[in-house]
Amino acid sequence: MSNQNLLEELVEIARSFASYGKVADYIPALSDQNPDDLAICIYSIENESFYAGDHLKKFTLQSISKVITLALVLMDNGEEEVFSKVGMEPTGDPFNSIAKLETNKPSKPLNPMINAGALAVTNMIKGDTVVEKWDRLIEFISHLTGQKVTYNEDVAYSELQTANLNRSLCYFMKQHGVITGNVEDLLVLYTKQCAVEMNCVDLAKIGAVFANDGLDPESGKQLISRDVARICKTFMVTCGMYNSSGEFAIKVGIPAKSGVSGGIMGSVPGRCGIGIFGPALDEVGNSFAGVKLLEGLSAKYSWSIF
Amino acid sequence: MSNQNLLEELVEIARSFASYGKVADYIPALSDQNPDDLAICIYSIENESFYAGDHLKKFTLQSISKVITLALVLMDNGEEEVFSKVGMEPTGDPFNSIAKLETNKPSKPLNPMINAGALAVTNMIKGDTVVEKWDRLIEFISHLTGQKVTYNEDVAYSELQTANLNRSLCYFMKQHGVITGNVEDLLVLYTKQCAVEMNCVDLAKIGAVFANDGLDPESGKQLISRDVARICKTFMVTCGMYNSSGEFAIKVGIPAKSGVSGGIMGSVPGRCGIGIFGPALDEVGNSFAGVKLLEGLSAKYSWSIF
Amino acid sequence: MSNQNLLEELVEIARSFASYGKVADYIPALSDQNPDDLAICIYSIENESFYAGDHLKKFTLQSISKVITLALVLMDNGEEEVFSKVGMEPTGDPFNSIAKLETNKPSKPLNPMINAGALAVTNMIKGDTVVEKWDRLIEFISHLTGQKVTYNEDVAYSELQTANLNRSLCYFMKQHGVITGNVEDLLVLYTKQCAVEMNCVDLAKIGAVFANDGLDPESGKQLISRDVARICKTFMVTCGMYNSSGEFAIKVGIPAKSGVSGGIMGSVPGRCGIGIFGPALDEVGNSFAGVKLLEGLSAKYSWSIF
Amino acid sequence: MSNQNLLEELVEIARSFASYGKVADYIPALSDQNPDDLAICIYSIENESFYAGDHLKKFTLQSISKVITLALVLMDNGEEEVFSKVGMEPTGDPFNSIAKLETNKPSKPLNPMINAGALAVTNMIKGDTVVEKWDRLIEFISHLTGQKVTYNEDVAYSELQTANLNRSLCYFMKQHGVITGNVEDLLVLYTKQCAVEMNCVDLAKIGAVFANDGLDPESGKQLISRDVARICKTFMVTCGMYNSSGEFAIKVGIPAKSGVSGGIMGSVPGRCGIGIFGPALDEVGNSFAGVKLLEGLSAKYSWSIF
Repeated sequence: MSNQNLLEELVEIARSFASYGKVADYIPALSDQNPDDLAICIYSIENESFYAGDHLKKFTLQSISKVITLALVLMDNGEEEVFSKVGMEPTGDPFNSIAKLETNKPSKPLNPMINAGALAVTNMIKGDTVVEKWDRLIEFISHLTGQKVTYNEDVAYSELQTANLNRSLCYFMKQHGVITGNVEDLLVLYTKQCAVEMNCVDLAKIGAVFANDGLDPESGKQLISRDVARICKTFMVTCGMYNSSGEFAIKVGIPAKSGVSGGIMGSVPGRCGIGIFGPALDEVGNSFAGVKLLEGLSAKYSWSIF
Repeated sequence: MSNQNLLEELVEIARSFASYGKVADYIPALSDQNPDDLAICIYSIENESFYAGDHLKKFTLQSISKVITLALVLMDNGEEEVFSKVGMEPTGDPFNSIAKLETNKPSKPLNPMINAGALAVTNMIKGDTVVEKWDRLIEFISHLTGQKVTYNEDVAYSELQTANLNRSLCYFMKQHGVITGNVEDLLVLYTKQCAVEMNCVDLAKIGAVFANDGLDPESGKQLISRDVARICKTFMVTCGMYNSSGEFAIKVGIPAKSGVSGGIMGSVPGRCGIGIFGPALDEVGNSFAGVKLLEGLSAKYSWSIF
Repeated sequence: MSNQNLLEELVEIARSFASYGKVADYIPALSDQNPDDLAICIYSIENESFYAGDHLKKFTLQSISKVITLALVLMDNGEEEVFSKVGMEPTGDPFNSIAKLETNKPSKPLNPMINAGALAVTNMIKGDTVVEKWDRLIEFISHLTGQKVTYNEDVAYSELQTANLNRSLCYFMKQHGVITGNVEDLLVLYTKQCAVEMNCVDLAKIGAVFANDGLDPESGKQLISRDVARICKTFMVTCGMYNSSGEFAIKVGIPAKSGVSGGIMGSVPGRCGIGIFGPALDEVGNSFAGVKLLEGLSAKYSWSIF
Repeated sequence: MSNQNLLEELVEIARSFASYGKVADYIPALSDQNPDDLAICIYSIENESFYAGDHLKKFTLQSISKVITLALVLMDNGEEEVFSKVGMEPTGDPFNSIAKLETNKPSKPLNPMINAGALAVTNMIKGDTVVEKWDRLIEFISHLTGQKVTYNEDVAYSELQTANLNRSLCYFMKQHGVITGNVEDLLVLYTKQCAVEMNCVDLAKIGAVFANDGLDPESGKQLISRDVARICKTFMVTCGMYNSSGEFAIKVGIPAKSGVSGGIMGSVPGRCGIGIFGPALDEVGNSFAGVKLLEGLSAKYSWSIF
């Protein structure tokens, strides 16, 4: 069977699991998604791509944006500065939990993949104004995909309205000196970042840059430094898939980051990037069918890094 | 410079960090160790070995034994059975913490590398009696090292006397049905397991078996199934180095498991096993010089899996 | 209406609430109780008593014993010694929780009414052997009731078998030096203490001694020192009714201690003791009808101390 | 010795303890206070008053305002409404902790004396605008003292600037529906409430109203309903003195509420109100000398309610 046919077959098998999941419903734009959607693109470091499902359908990055912003911020500020504000350790607590911020001394988010840590990271994007910071971020993402990327204003606006838990995390961190500056500005920036929109081909392309040690397979440019690409892939393994990161590492073993929109970005070191969109989520917030699809692919092609 | 010379040089550089650490002091046998000791062996999957420092000095496995016992128990019981009693997720809590056992519903240790999880795993070793279980375990370890391995009775006895925190964890888990059977029997077995003694060459050899997908580089026998070897290496990355597993994954990127005796077993997939002994510990409980040595090696040979 | 008639009327009103409750079911002896039982005795400091319901029915003290043992132990050891091992603060956590023992530095049970604290208190009963300690405790209780009191062997034995959570608490405290000595001995003593059996008249009598500043209304003897009686009544208010102690203080305002057998001992300072038995429990573990009955009495006679 | 002389003597004894304490330092206005200050007024329900120390010195209410606002809000909304938003249980956690808001299901502050609960209470003051709510509150307080009361603008402004932890609590509660409306408006109102200024005579007068079941000893008017006065006194016992409420209940036994300005309002049921000002605080945040002074008074006059 050709790779293309195999991919299509794996997608159809995985799609049947979508019915066990549930689309995110905390804002209308997400709850309107079709739970049966499932699309994938595999983008090799030799700059080839394969796809199956409705690969042109756009979705917002949500938490997937955390790892991309982390790459920019690490290049902006260096490891030492970044990790003085946010830790490197996985956590057994939910992604939006505040308890550890209170019990850890000094107060510091455990890692950049939980909300508190991601907010602290976004707060470190260089720029004199929110506009300047945003321009730098969206330009960075556009370079990674190789084309102009935008964000979904409705989603960003809705999320800003319902962002009280993130507000709470921000003010808690501000109290403890983890973040500085205006909290509302930070939330505007963060919700726009989460609302960046693309299709699974674009996402696979970004995954391929990480897989290729930061080198763009298309242009040959070093878009992310080798060390930063490695650090990001490490976080994708230790805490990229919410509270089932450990299980995902065992069953799939591919560095990956998911978002509540149903997107997953995978990055198989030295091989390929993967972009998936499947909005029906499992109970921890990962695409149900997407995870199943990655399990199938990893087993088939022996992509586990372990 | 030859590999041997390089290794010796890296050891001498790393040894200087030992003075920042502190040997474990909760039992006399550990507190008597020389903080300046540092030895390493690298055992390739081609069955070659290199060492530096006092490579014949013996030490007890302590928490390193957790990953070896896990391998046996996974082969004994299968993944489904094992993971019905112990989770797969890393935790931000200390290795001996009890709090999550209380807050998680249902009560279940988060992973097999924290004490609660390791006790639940040891409880699943097959055998009708403690003696039979112990015989199976020590035989399994002996097969892995390729020679008869024993345990340090003084250490085992001392640890049993001071094991009240582990007793507490056991009775808590017994209350919630995570473990069954006699708690004192389990603690006898567990403290013997932790007191298994070997040198860094033996330990590197075990690491090499994991690195070689379960295949013994010496005898060519499949001592551990491929899947089980992969699962063990995954836990070594996500939670093998106590509360700095995340930082270690970023800075070193080698599957590894440490113990409070100062031992570290590393396993570079497809390349080699590593055995280290350096008893001066950092604040989370890892060999201070040992971690520095692995940082140097990983950077030099690009051994990070990410 | 006479006091007697009023009491009988209040009992019948309160009894109707028993159907909302549920008898404890963790050991057979408790689960066999009749949920509709409700009996009360009011024992004045002028040595008069009134009762309604089946006032001769016996029940075990369970957690009510905590406050009686505390009185003995305070007289045995003095305040300073006792409060070096157990705190004086109410807690928002469940009575059997272990989490705070881990997070509080130094590790110390928050108060003597939660299980950890009660175990630490029982551990301080003076005596060279378990038998001697037990003899002193049961003699003390017998003096309080004015007659020979015994314990229910079946209940004590059953509770010892299922005491793994208390074992866990004990070993945790032993690790941290809060308790010393043999844990199994302590559990034997503690489960016997919880299994002490009496009827609501006896219980009301004990409540009257506390209400009367430690002076026995019957014999005129000072069985408990004035200060110790005051301290015990204080704990009954701040943490005597499990996790609804605060609500009970607001709605009833009488120092009281409950047990999972369905017993409640009340103590209205300068007025009377109250003994209640009603085994159908509310969700936090207090007698459902018993609490309603106390609400009615407190409102009727303005017995709130606030 | 006359009551007046005795009071002066007790003050001088207690003042010597001030040196063990430390004035609050998180805003300049508080850190400028003289640690050796100590003043007291006892205001009987027969409308007599005694004082010692610099009884005219003004201080801000801080957390003492929580119990006064609670009285207004209970009369505004009724018990059922108020306790649907805030619990009645004491907590073992610090007054500004957020952890229990996350772990309790449903999310609800444990009681009205911790910051989260007090913010939820202030949020229920009736009024269409912040101004209207504030006017009602300050008028209520003025009625209680019998004269026009104002607030310290500098203190209110400073506290609003440093209120990020309270902001965090508010947004967390807003996310969970415990509070509604504009958070900044609520914080403005809350910081003004905390900055209400008076001397110890005024404070003793308010305590006397509570002691007198809500009846003003001066005017004879029922300023607070009897039930509400009782509820407030109950909270003062179970959780009025931060994390040493339990110890205070045992050692003093008087319903009391403290603030970080060094004020304490006491209320001896059926006897008198007490106002104290002594800004050097113990480690949990209560006036060091103030607590000692109350211990002396309670012992001397047998004022413990237990």
